[in-house]
Amino acid sequence: MKKVITFGEIMLRLAPEGYYRFLQADKYGATYGGGEANVAVSLANFGLDASFVTKLPSHEIGEAAVNSIRRFGVDTSMIVRGGERVGIYFLEKGASQRPSKVIYDRAGSSISTAIKRDFDWDNIFEGVDWFHFTGITPALGDNVADICLEACKAAKNKGITISCDLNYRKKLWSREHACKIMSELCKYVDVCIANEEDASDVFDIKAEHTNINGGIIDHEAYRDVAKKLENKFGFKAVAITLRSSISANDNKWAAMLYMNNEFYFSKSYNIHIIDRVGGGDSFGAGLIYSLLNGFDGQNAIEFAVAASCLKHTIEGDFNMVTVDEVLKLAGGDGSGRVQR
Amino acid sequence: MKKVITFGEIMLRLAPEGYYRFLQADKYGATYGGGEANVAVSLANFGLDASFVTKLPSHEIGEAAVNSIRRFGVDTSMIVRGGERVGIYFLEKGASQRPSKVIYDRAGSSISTAIKRDFDWDNIFEGVDWFHFTGITPALGDNVADICLEACKAAKNKGITISCDLNYRKKLWSREHACKIMSELCKYVDVCIANEEDASDVFDIKAEHTNINGGIIDHEAYRDVAKKLENKFGFKAVAITLRSSISANDNKWAAMLYMNNEFYFSKSYNIHIIDRVGGGDSFGAGLIYSLLNGFDGQNAIEFAVAASCLKHTIEGDFNMVTVDEVLKLAGGDGSGRVQR
Amino acid sequence: MKKVITFGEIMLRLAPEGYYRFLQADKYGATYGGGEANVAVSLANFGLDASFVTKLPSHEIGEAAVNSIRRFGVDTSMIVRGGERVGIYFLEKGASQRPSKVIYDRAGSSISTAIKRDFDWDNIFEGVDWFHFTGITPALGDNVADICLEACKAAKNKGITISCDLNYRKKLWSREHACKIMSELCKYVDVCIANEEDASDVFDIKAEHTNINGGIIDHEAYRDVAKKLENKFGFKAVAITLRSSISANDNKWAAMLYMNNEFYFSKSYNIHIIDRVGGGDSFGAGLIYSLLNGFDGQNAIEFAVAASCLKHTIEGDFNMVTVDEVLKLAGGDGSGRVQR
Amino acid sequence: MKKVITFGEIMLRLAPEGYYRFLQADKYGATYGGGEANVAVSLANFGLDASFVTKLPSHEIGEAAVNSIRRFGVDTSMIVRGGERVGIYFLEKGASQRPSKVIYDRAGSSISTAIKRDFDWDNIFEGVDWFHFTGITPALGDNVADICLEACKAAKNKGITISCDLNYRKKLWSREHACKIMSELCKYVDVCIANEEDASDVFDIKAEHTNINGGIIDHEAYRDVAKKLENKFGFKAVAITLRSSISANDNKWAAMLYMNNEFYFSKSYNIHIIDRVGGGDSFGAGLIYSLLNGFDGQNAIEFAVAASCLKHTIEGDFNMVTVDEVLKLAGGDGSGRVQR
Amino acid sequence: MKKVITFGEIMLRLAPEGYYRFLQADKYGATYGGGEANVAVSLANFGLDASFVTKLPSHEIGEAAVNSIRRFGVDTSMIVRGGERVGIYFLEKGASQRPSKVIYDRAGSSISTAIKRDFDWDNIFEGVDWFHFTGITPALGDNVADICLEACKAAKNKGITISCDLNYRKKLWSREHACKIMSELCKYVDVCIANEEDASDVFDIKAEHTNINGGIIDHEAYRDVAKKLENKFGFKAVAITLRSSISANDNKWAAMLYMNNEFYFSKSYNIHIIDRVGGGDSFGAGLIYSLLNGFDGQNAIEFAVAASCLKHTIEGDFNMVTVDEVLKLAGGDGSGRVQR
Amino acid sequence: MKKVITFGEIMLRLAPEGYYRFLQADKYGATYGGGEANVAVSLANFGLDASFVTKLPSHEIGEAAVNSIRRFGVDTSMIVRGGERVGIYFLEKGASQRPSKVIYDRAGSSISTAIKRDFDWDNIFEGVDWFHFTGITPALGDNVADICLEACKAAKNKGITISCDLNYRKKLWSREHACKIMSELCKYVDVCIANEEDASDVFDIKAEHTNINGGIIDHEAYRDVAKKLENKFGFKAVAITLRSSISANDNKWAAMLYMNNEFYFSKSYNIHIIDRVGGGDSFGAGLIYSLLNGFDGQNAIEFAVAASCLKHTIEGDFNMVTVDEVLKLAGGDGSGRVQR
Repeated sequence: MKKVITFGEIMLRLAPEGYYRFLQADKYGATYGGGEANVAVSLANFGLDASFVTKLPSHEIGEAAVNSIRRFGVDTSMIVRGGERVGIYFLEKGASQRPSKVIYDRAGSSISTAIKRDFDWDNIFEGVDWFHFTGITPALGDNVADICLEACKAAKNKGITISCDLNYRKKLWSREHACKIMSELCKYVDVCIANEEDASDVFDIKAEHTNINGGIIDHEAYRDVAKKLENKFGFKAVAITLRSSISANDNKWAAMLYMNNEFYFSKSYNIHIIDRVGGGDSFGAGLIYSLLNGFDGQNAIEFAVAASCLKHTIEGDFNMVTVDEVLKLAGGDGSGRVQR
Repeated sequence: MKKVITFGEIMLRLAPEGYYRFLQADKYGATYGGGEANVAVSLANFGLDASFVTKLPSHEIGEAAVNSIRRFGVDTSMIVRGGERVGIYFLEKGASQRPSKVIYDRAGSSISTAIKRDFDWDNIFEGVDWFHFTGITPALGDNVADICLEACKAAKNKGITISCDLNYRKKLWSREHACKIMSELCKYVDVCIANEEDASDVFDIKAEHTNINGGIIDHEAYRDVAKKLENKFGFKAVAITLRSSISANDNKWAAMLYMNNEFYFSKSYNIHIIDRVGGGDSFGAGLIYSLLNGFDGQNAIEFAVAASCLKHTIEGDFNMVTVDEVLKLAGGDGSGRVQR
Repeated sequence: MKKVITFGEIMLRLAPEGYYRFLQADKYGATYGGGEANVAVSLANFGLDASFVTKLPSHEIGEAAVNSIRRFGVDTSMIVRGGERVGIYFLEKGASQRPSKVIYDRAGSSISTAIKRDFDWDNIFEGVDWFHFTGITPALGDNVADICLEACKAAKNKGITISCDLNYRKKLWSREHACKIMSELCKYVDVCIANEEDASDVFDIKAEHTNINGGIIDHEAYRDVAKKLENKFGFKAVAITLRSSISANDNKWAAMLYMNNEFYFSKSYNIHIIDRVGGGDSFGAGLIYSLLNGFDGQNAIEFAVAASCLKHTIEGDFNMVTVDEVLKLAGGDGSGRVQR
Repeated sequence: MKKVITFGEIMLRLAPEGYYRFLQADKYGATYGGGEANVAVSLANFGLDASFVTKLPSHEIGEAAVNSIRRFGVDTSMIVRGGERVGIYFLEKGASQRPSKVIYDRAGSSISTAIKRDFDWDNIFEGVDWFHFTGITPALGDNVADICLEACKAAKNKGITISCDLNYRKKLWSREHACKIMSELCKYVDVCIANEEDASDVFDIKAEHTNINGGIIDHEAYRDVAKKLENKFGFKAVAITLRSSISANDNKWAAMLYMNNEFYFSKSYNIHIIDRVGGGDSFGAGLIYSLLNGFDGQNAIEFAVAASCLKHTIEGDFNMVTVDEVLKLAGGDGSGRVQR
Repeated sequence: MKKVITFGEIMLRLAPEGYYRFLQADKYGATYGGGEANVAVSLANFGLDASFVTKLPSHEIGEAAVNSIRRFGVDTSMIVRGGERVGIYFLEKGASQRPSKVIYDRAGSSISTAIKRDFDWDNIFEGVDWFHFTGITPALGDNVADICLEACKAAKNKGITISCDLNYRKKLWSREHACKIMSELCKYVDVCIANEEDASDVFDIKAEHTNINGGIIDHEAYRDVAKKLENKFGFKAVAITLRSSISANDNKWAAMLYMNNEFYFSKSYNIHIIDRVGGGDSFGAGLIYSLLNGFDGQNAIEFAVAASCLKHTIEGDFNMVTVDEVLKLAGGDGSGRVQR
Repeated sequence: MKKVITFGEIMLRLAPEGYYRFLQADKYGATYGGGEANVAVSLANFGLDASFVTKLPSHEIGEAAVNSIRRFGVDTSMIVRGGERVGIYFLEKGASQRPSKVIYDRAGSSISTAIKRDFDWDNIFEGVDWFHFTGITPALGDNVADICLEACKAAKNKGITISCDLNYRKKLWSREHACKIMSELCKYVDVCIANEEDASDVFDIKAEHTNINGGIIDHEAYRDVAKKLENKFGFKAVAITLRSSISANDNKWAAMLYMNNEFYFSKSYNIHIIDRVGGGDSFGAGLIYSLLNGFDGQNAIEFAVAASCLKHTIEGDFNMVTVDEVLKLAGGDGSGRVQR
């Protein structure tokens, strides 16, 4: 079985029930999530051997975070225990014209105060095929960026494929700082994942003016951005997702993969959203799975987009779908008919 | 008051809250349902004297199943108590491209192990106007099919109208076995109800090739299938529902009635679904009500489709609507404006 | 800070969870609401000094009603305590073609049995800029209509702007009685708010036949009704909301303001509804806020409609939105993208 | 099967979850209950043919009240539909030194505004063995007291045994008025049920001074009160319950039966309370069951007290226990060991 | 009306439902609490004019904290908005031999990072009769201790009575540091409140050896400690609570007041606990209320202990009881009988 | 780290909320449990390497059962997937005199239909120190008893310590059949665990008449039974638990260990019960842990009893306690004081 390591932060997610606003909440659903943890869970649900690396406090809230992913078969034996707190994010689900809101309360979390010698990357990467992280991890602090760099070097030494989802978070760092740090890290990255804004936010890479109008312009802009990213860092593959937000309840969702000088565009899905948080991460997991399993470009991007389409219908950060379910949707059955 | 008997299985339905997947469920909503029980409840809510016949264990879960329908006024005095267990079905509600899922756990239920002398049909049918069952009941086992046949004969002897919803369930029996058993039972049936696939699944009856295209083809196909069914079994009426599944959340819903050599097509509804399970059963109940009350063909099919349209907006298997509510919608008011 | 007084009834609202019907409810969500209380809470959430005047029993249910609005900063020091009961309304949320249902159980509430000397209007109106009530308040009984009239006179004496939302409730009084009482009260009103049916229901004011067809006719009809209302009572401003009900889940929502001989039409919103109760009240609050803060006609009506658009996405009667959130939507951002 | 009629009010019971106070409640558990309805449900659970007579509004809240008892097999076909509202009581569950609190909101309920010709007692009492009411029913209003008297006369004419639980409610009427009305009604009563305060509250009957001390005094006082009641009205049996309230969580519970000039004292139970509302009614039901089934005095009182002991462990007004469960406890097994 | 200011931290309290352990929690009840906020709410529920002073972030979680106490009538107009986060504490409710557990996550909260000029004490103390804080507030950081000292000086200048609950928290500071800071603050304090361990923890004040045995020793030890505290700081009154923990569910609870050279001992209560957090704070509030209203020593301590006894029966940090309820219990009625 | 294998059935446990009876349940808490799975989870929570062996269907309910224990770190890689269903047990929690009730619905579960070649015991026992099963496993069917025997032989061959909890279930097999099968299996067992009734139920071993009275008789009876068990099967250790059921809420709990010809009696705990299911299993896990870690006899039995005492305070079958928590209680701190 292919083995994947992901590294980052897992937070306690506190969300009022249903569509209640923060001001109405007298209880919070308590789940856990974070970019790289989400990817690990999704890969475990696909049947891969996924291991998540982070640092969590030794108290019960830290233990609950461990359990939240161990439950789905993610290997948690590489998680370091220590530090003071589990980062928290509060999530209010939007509806119609009212947007979802996230309030972060993650300063001082165990992983954000981790130090290099917390992690023995040579040991962690033993027998590993793929290493994944996102732009959120180095944004947690320069100490974490250093750890991330160390991990990239160790992975590269072992010939492990490295993927990175740019995932720019403006609350965590400035564009300038992000650009500096991510430029260094991206030297080690093989597969770059981004949404339609990340390339611009992090690297100031924008699509050239194109005089093609309507829906087609997206395709051209995609191609242009992907090529520029590939030129700058020598990525072996670049994947870009496109979300079209009609309302908080309804989104369009599609993506493109640029690989071996070919562009592969996925189908576009009209999604009636249950929970869109973790949508990008489920795309990343779908892409890692399909590339690790040798899918060709078109099938790879269709798998990744179908996987993330399904994620939008599932509560919580984690994508709880099997390979069969993804393949069924990617194969064209999106009618939602009851399966008995 | 008109009196209707329905005969079949009522199961414990265990469904995670909202849109949670099975893997996320730490509690299950516990309701009860099953094709013929659903029809009985709907008819009781319409004000008819409806009685449901089945076998249920004598323990508290069996008692809870009895109470679940007695609550709405269904007569439960003909229910036999005994056997080992209440059949169960697990239901996961789908959303958008993710389909709803049903896992059946019904083997060994009391009704599926019932024997002929559990039921005294002459007594049960005393003063009864209509007898209804579905294709699920004989599929529970040849012992139950035999009981069903006995019931049909007894009903026929008393001049009771018999309706059957074909309701093919591939998990319960093969097409071949279904065809054999249902062909025998359908000899006694006056009103045949089917969805767009049942006639093909059970009797291999398919619409002839028609060179009419677009939306109109459905009408022709319907007509053709209904006529073939009528030819084969001499049904007095054939009703066929058509579900068009846009997604797990949005369906189109309409139906046709073939009676006295006339075809009646209903309006089509665009439904935003709350719970689609029991949709077909609510159609059957609407049809039984309207035919028992002498509605003409067009009004009968409009009533049945409006009733089942409303069912899709109600949680659980049971249709909780009054005759007035159905008539209001059938009469054209589907705006959903608040009624104060 | 501008100070606003609203006067009316606040009721206990009992609503089954989610989309459950009354017949399925084994618990009721317990919140509080009522036209004028809703306006007061919305204004407090906008940062104004809002005070709600009513009468409530001295027991704990009455106290809970007080707390429900004090929580959001509404001044409750002018509420009189006494009488027998808190009025109740039961609310069943509709879906798709099934309408929402309200069952009122408000007879004998403390406010409906209040007497004139319960309220010292000179004291209540000290330092106040605006007084608001709706047509529901005088409909509670002639005793309450008398109190309302007294309040209007006291407000007028102090030069306080008076607004009234016509809000006709046919369960509370006849059209004839409403017309008589409201005609007297409207003499004191500066700003008249109505939905598309109120003017006709209360004053028998209907749009003249206009030979303009399609969507434009609404605009003409609006203009005509607003002018007639202005002619009859000398209102300084008339605002009319228009709801277009596609289903219980989906509505279109827009409004018009007639002021200083100009007509201002708002954008129209396609709303996926979470809870539409209190939608009109949130419009009134938005209008009061914008007019009190000197918004011009177009900005005033856009603010009021955007505010009430957002209300439709929030559970309960109360509009829990800030001025910034309303301005963001009024300014054009209705994409519902996650705000991190 | 023995048939019992009970007559009275059934109310919507609104109770905060667990031990929340009214001021903390944002939802209410919604069940139904009332003295005579509770007796009917308990008898139906014992397997008797129990029918509850009342008047309820024709809307859905009234229907839900009907369903709440029909669910357990109570015959509801004699319930009259009409009037304005379902009476409500709010219940806050106490703990330790904090008492439970009841806030009644029952004025204007359908039954309290019923008139004589709503009920055709000759028809209602067809084939009936026992008629039961409590002192709450005539307290609802003189109109209801008149109906009650009419019922008693009709029952007496048919030779039906009549039981009455005195159940004095000071919020509903004065002691003087209660005495006057109840004295008239008690002339028809065969079996009188009272708690330790009712005889004094309603009839000013108090135990004579007895110079026996300690725990024994209760027995003497009981005997004295029972004899006086029997002397005054010629009851065939008098049953008195004694509750000893250690705290809101822990009560002692016992009773005495005076019949055929013999006194029978039950065991005393130390009860850890789940819900004590309806405790007295469950005693009444137990007594009716045991007397109807010819239990001797000692077995009758033990059955009644064991039944009501179990009620204290069950949420809601209704006693959900079988005859077997009661006999097991009455027979001495109160260890609470798991039954597998 | 008497006016009281309290100053300290209010935290978000996250507690699993019922008796679930942290490792089982998939939702958290979200309430708010903290020593001084709890006192303010309790005083507001007693009808006093209570104002709580703190610093809270300007986002919605901060707003929800404000609303949580404003709801009960606490004046929140002196709360400063700013800083980064609301402190959090996780609470797991214990049972029987399993203790309750608190995990604090309060570092970096807005109040703990407040600075002197955030608070204008001269303005805050305008028209105030009493100022209360606990030992937790200065333990939040030396910056907060400085603010506290400034507040004490300002209060003293205005002749305001100052009370302090020692409330030692070992997770926040060492005994040495606590002793140093609290010794400085206590110079300004008039009324000192402590539990049976605080005097020893903070000031190393222990009861002298007494050769009186059994239950009486507590009384002597109390007297000794109170006298020593009074000697050291010149307090006008010293109150000490005594908790005797039989299990997580059952505690004994009593207290002593030393005032004007007299010792007053309260009754002792056997409490079946619903929620013991905030028990000490409710005692403080009871004492402040009774002293502010001129109760004599015995009545004052009985009121305070009865108030806090009732708190143990109420979910959440806040004491939701009225003066009447406390007086009833202090007066001897602890039977917990239903109040109708 | 010590490695333990347990083998048996894990069932879906469906329990109404709180103290609701089955007849009132409209939802069921869904957890998982079973004797040997409970032991495995408890051991994993103690930090051991615990692996649970069973057979579960490949559908989502089976997967959820796997996840329920994987979450706590139990190794699930030896679980075989296949068969038709997950066994179910319904649990109604009792209170006071009302006992808890269990309704089993486990016939036809995957493990009960397993065959020998489903399990490769040589592989399973690689590196294992201890093997544990209970009398429930062989009671599932002779096929499972055969598998159990095979496992015992394989374990014995590898020198693995074997423990068995007799755990007689009368619903599963007769005493005669149990005696025959268990006698064969017990030949391989090193450590025998039983409750006060098992030895009599399974092996007809009863304490000799002893003329020692009062509480001491239990000790003598224990000794006698333990010796007889040891004599019959040559167990290295025999542990017997004693439950004294005061009511469904309150039990006394203690145990004895007989090892190396010495008798060790534990403290006795008065437990206020939250959930007593799994109490015996948590004792077994405590004993395995303490013996594997070389505790002496007295410490071993104190650890096991303290662990199981804590289990009674925790919802669900699983014991969620750490070694530190157990040691703290075993060491004498059972006061339940809040731990901050």
